[in-house]
Formats: sequence, structure tokens, C-alpha cells
Amino acid sequence: MEFPNVNQIREAAARIQPYARRTPVLTSLSLNEIFGASVFFKGENFQKVGAFKFRGACNAVFSLSPEEAGRGVVTHSSGNHAAAVALAARLRGIPAYIAMPENSLPVKRTAVAGYGGQIFLFPPNPAARDAAKNEIMRKTGAAFIHPFNDPRVIAGQATAAMELFEEVDGLEVIMAPVGGGGLISGTALATAPLSPRTKVIAAEPEEADDAYRSLKEGHILPAVSPPRTLADGLLTSLGDLTFAVIQRHVSQIITVSEKAIIEAMRLVWERMKIVIEPSAAVPVGVLLEKKIDLSGKRVGVILSGGNADLDHLPWAIPLRNAP
Amino acid sequence: MEFPNVNQIREAAARIQPYARRTPVLTSLSLNEIFGASVFFKGENFQKVGAFKFRGACNAVFSLSPEEAGRGVVTHSSGNHAAAVALAARLRGIPAYIAMPENSLPVKRTAVAGYGGQIFLFPPNPAARDAAKNEIMRKTGAAFIHPFNDPRVIAGQATAAMELFEEVDGLEVIMAPVGGGGLISGTALATAPLSPRTKVIAAEPEEADDAYRSLKEGHILPAVSPPRTLADGLLTSLGDLTFAVIQRHVSQIITVSEKAIIEAMRLVWERMKIVIEPSAAVPVGVLLEKKIDLSGKRVGVILSGGNADLDHLPWAIPLRNAP
Repeated sequence: MEFPNVNQIREAAARIQPYARRTPVLTSLSLNEIFGASVFFKGENFQKVGAFKFRGACNAVFSLSPEEAGRGVVTHSSGNHAAAVALAARLRGIPAYIAMPENSLPVKRTAVAGYGGQIFLFPPNPAARDAAKNEIMRKTGAAFIHPFNDPRVIAGQATAAMELFEEVDGLEVIMAPVGGGGLISGTALATAPLSPRTKVIAAEPEEADDAYRSLKEGHILPAVSPPRTLADGLLTSLGDLTFAVIQRHVSQIITVSEKAIIEAMRLVWERMKIVIEPSAAVPVGVLLEKKIDLSGKRVGVILSGGNADLDHLPWAIPLRNAP
Repeated sequence: MEFPNVNQIREAAARIQPYARRTPVLTSLSLNEIFGASVFFKGENFQKVGAFKFRGACNAVFSLSPEEAGRGVVTHSSGNHAAAVALAARLRGIPAYIAMPENSLPVKRTAVAGYGGQIFLFPPNPAARDAAKNEIMRKTGAAFIHPFNDPRVIAGQATAAMELFEEVDGLEVIMAPVGGGGLISGTALATAPLSPRTKVIAAEPEEADDAYRSLKEGHILPAVSPPRTLADGLLTSLGDLTFAVIQRHVSQIITVSEKAIIEAMRLVWERMKIVIEPSAAVPVGVLLEKKIDLSGKRVGVILSGGNADLDHLPWAIPLRNAP
């Protein structure tokens, strides 16, 4: 598979434009003071389905020929990508078959079903997942849309950084979280041609640091198991395509402690009055922990999503005398 | 005291323009579906100090003559108005003396002190509050800025509705919460000249329904004591000026249950990915409870603020296995 180029990223932007939101770029004087940097947040928490994932899924679904599309699309995901594919398919008027692990959260399944996705449950292991996906493909002929290791998906995710560069000049650093690597790959592939002086930094939880170790060792390592991070969007390991993009175009991967992820998430909620999910707080945690010196710099941060579990906040104490 | 007129509201807008944020107007297809109406939310949670209160305080502080201003400003408040006056005074470079009850939250005092306000604590009763304020005025000659019963403050609060009318045409209803009445009075006084066909509705917690009963009985009733609502910004009773504006310009006051306030607050966080405080959720609760028929209507809602207590959410369950 080849890396998507800048023309394919521009085509993706045009393709998803009727469906995706152009999300706002937000700033906070109070956070700039705390971080000692000028930070420009790209609010993908305000994207359709509440996460950047809609960009890639939408680009992939609308890239299919009418004939391919007619047979529907299939994916496996327990999270935001599942909802994103289901919504994109509904917007194109084609079936979406979504393989979800049996231990996926009921609230996530409800969201997928709400977008018209047909759910197939599988026991939570990779072999069962692939078997479920292959069985659906065999029966329906549906086109598979991988959550991240797919040039169409990566080109879609790249449009978030492209929009940020259109609005903000002179960014010295751009940061995004890394899980499977779709968002950071897209970000890096948009940055190289559109803002070549901007350094691309990936942010990863210390407790799920397989991308950091993979980059160091020069080959893909499996995800940390069992996962010990709240950033539930960043649990998968890299794919061959995203790994190759990261090796070539990402300056470094910084790992972030759970304490910093939680504190960063709370700070954004408190000071910016916006809801972000733990995975989105990981690059903000880089600014907080200051393992690298970003002082005085103009920094772009992709806030990847806002689907936080409001019933289980990492810092909240229940209200005793609530009515 | 006379009601501020439309020219004074326009002057307020010009006066605060260099300091206050022009907050965004937000919409949500998913909430429109739930409410069966087209709702335009004015995001005062994104205002400086996290609440509309900055508009009124800023207008009052910058309305003072240089001579008056030189002696500083004084107010009493345990909440957003205290922070708003402190910040406005800092921006004008004058002292702010803030009388706060001894039982005010430490986090609120920290915010006021952070903006450079000088805090004077008093025992939590009206007589001690007035004594503290009068003592400060006698010693310093500072100008008093009432939290709501002041034409300069009301004219400032009116600018939120004015901005909403500039961006959204044909609103059939505009709603804001009512506590002391500064925001709803300003909203009503902006609506009468600028959008005369728009009906003004005040939203009040059932468990703090003194404005509702005051309007019914034709005279000001004291606040419900002890307060039994989460909407801690709406605990005060009306002033003579705000009561007169409400009598003349507000169509009706709708009361909202605590259950609806909590559910509305959660819905806004979940679907819009923004943080609002309980008081801001009260008009959203009107849309949820449907005591009045707003179906198919274009409805403006002033989301009054975003200073929610993130440590004590009314619905949250603590995370057992948090790191």
C-alpha cells in the first residue's frame, strides 16, 4: 500500500465536505499561561459521531464505486470507528455490517444501531474478530474498511490537520495521539507538504506504549495487554502502513503518565468548557508534563474526540445530597 | 431607577467589546430531534470567567468616571459576579473589593483572588453582608456594583441576546434562567426593541421558584430557604428593577424539576460536548419537560455559564479501578 499524497488528501477533503463538520480551532489564554506556549486546539470532539474517525470512514465509504458500495461495507471496532462507518454508510444509503466484540459497551452498540449499522458480536479475540469479518464479507461481498491501516482512511484523517494549517500560520509543532496510528499518520502526511517546517509529535499513554517501543526497536510490537490506560481509543497496535508513515514522518513519540492524562482532561473541561475523551487528553498531557521543551512555541493539538463516559469520570466524587 | 434603553444596550456592547468574548451560537441536530424544535444556544459558558456575568460587570466598571473608578469598586457575591467584577477591575487597573460569605467555596475565592480581587469574608446573612459592603464603601469610597439590580449591569447582560439576534433571524422564543433577574431582564430589554415578535420566557428551578410566585402575586417574595436546587446561580430573590422589567416584558416564567435540570445538563454535555453549569441547564429543562409547546419553533437559549463543579457531578459514579 502506498502513502496517500497531498492530492489524495485534498480529494478526501472535497469528498467529505458535504457530510463532515469543519470543526472549530479553539484557544485558551489560561491554558497558554499554564503551558507556557501558544496552543491551537482542533476540536474534533465536535466532529460528527464525536470523533475524527468520521473523516476517514466517510472518505473510505464515499470512495467506493457504485457497484462496490451497493454490496455495503464491513468493519470491526468497539468504538468510534464503528459509529463512524455506520453513519457514513447511512449517508450513502448502503448497508453497514459492524463486527463488535461481545464485551463492547452497550452504549457504543446503541450508537451504532442508532446509525442503522447491523451488529455482529464476536468473542473478544483477534481470531474470532477476523473470522466474523471474513464471514460477513463472504456472505455479502461488503467492502472492508479497516479502522486505520487503509490509505483512504488515513487521507480522511489528514483533513483535520489540513484545516488547522488553513486557519493557523507558523505552527512549530503539531501533536496528535497515537493508537493504531491513523490520525497521526494522516496528520504527518498533511504536514510534510503543507507545513514542512512543523514538527510532528505523537503522544501515547505510558501504559500503552507499544508505538513508542515499536519505533525504537524498528518493528511493530503488539499492544500492551491487558491495557492499563483510561485512553480506551489508543489500545490497538500499529499497522504496517501507519508504522511506515510514522517511521518516516513523525519526529518523536512522547509517552504520558495516567496522572497527566487525567489532569490534562480535567484542565480542558474546566478552562475551555468542552468535553474531551481521555484519548484526546494525551497530547495535552505532553504540554503538562513538559518532558520536551515547548515553551514559547506555537503548538497545534488535534483533540481527537469527545465521547467521554460521563457516568464514570476519573476524578469525580458522587454528589451525596443530589435529589 | 430607569430601565436601560436600546441605546444604552448598544453603548454597553461597544464599551465591553475590547474585553468580552463574542461567544459562539451553537446548534445540535441531535438535540433538535429530541426537543422537536430548532434551538440556537448562545454559549456564555465560553464568556470570560465562564459566565454571562462578565458582560454586566465589565459594562458597569467601564461606565465609571475616571474619578469614581480611581477609588475602586465593591460588590458582594459568592459566585460568578465576584470573579466578573474582579476581572473587569483588573482590566481597568483599579482595585476590586469583594465581600464573600464565609461559607463560599474555596475554589470561588481562589478564582477571585487570582483576578486580583481583595476578599472580605462575612458571616452568611444579609445584615452581615450589607455591613461588610458598607464598611468597605465608607473606608475606600469604592463604587458599589450590584450583582443584578443595576441598569448598567442589566444593559451589559442584554448584549448576549443582542448578539444572538444579530446572528439568528426569526426566533419565536428566547429563554434564559432567572435568579436575581439580571440576565432575563437584559434579555427582555434587548428583545423588545430588536426582535419584538420574539416571546421572552424565563426558566426557574421548581425548588427555587420565588420569581414565579412573585410574578403571580404581584410583589417580590424572598428566595426559598434553604435552597434545594443544584442551580446554585439562581438562589437570590428579584430586585425592584429586575422585577419591574419582568412584569412588563417577560411573557411567562416556567418552573423546571431538578430531574429535568440534571437530565438537560447531561444531554448538553453528551450531545454538544460542552460543559455547562446547572443554572444554564434550566431553560434546556423547559425544552425537555415540554410544559409549554415549543414544537417546530425557532428557540434561542442563553446558556448562562460553564462553571460546573467537576468534582461533584449529579450523575457521576466514581471510577473504581482508576489509576
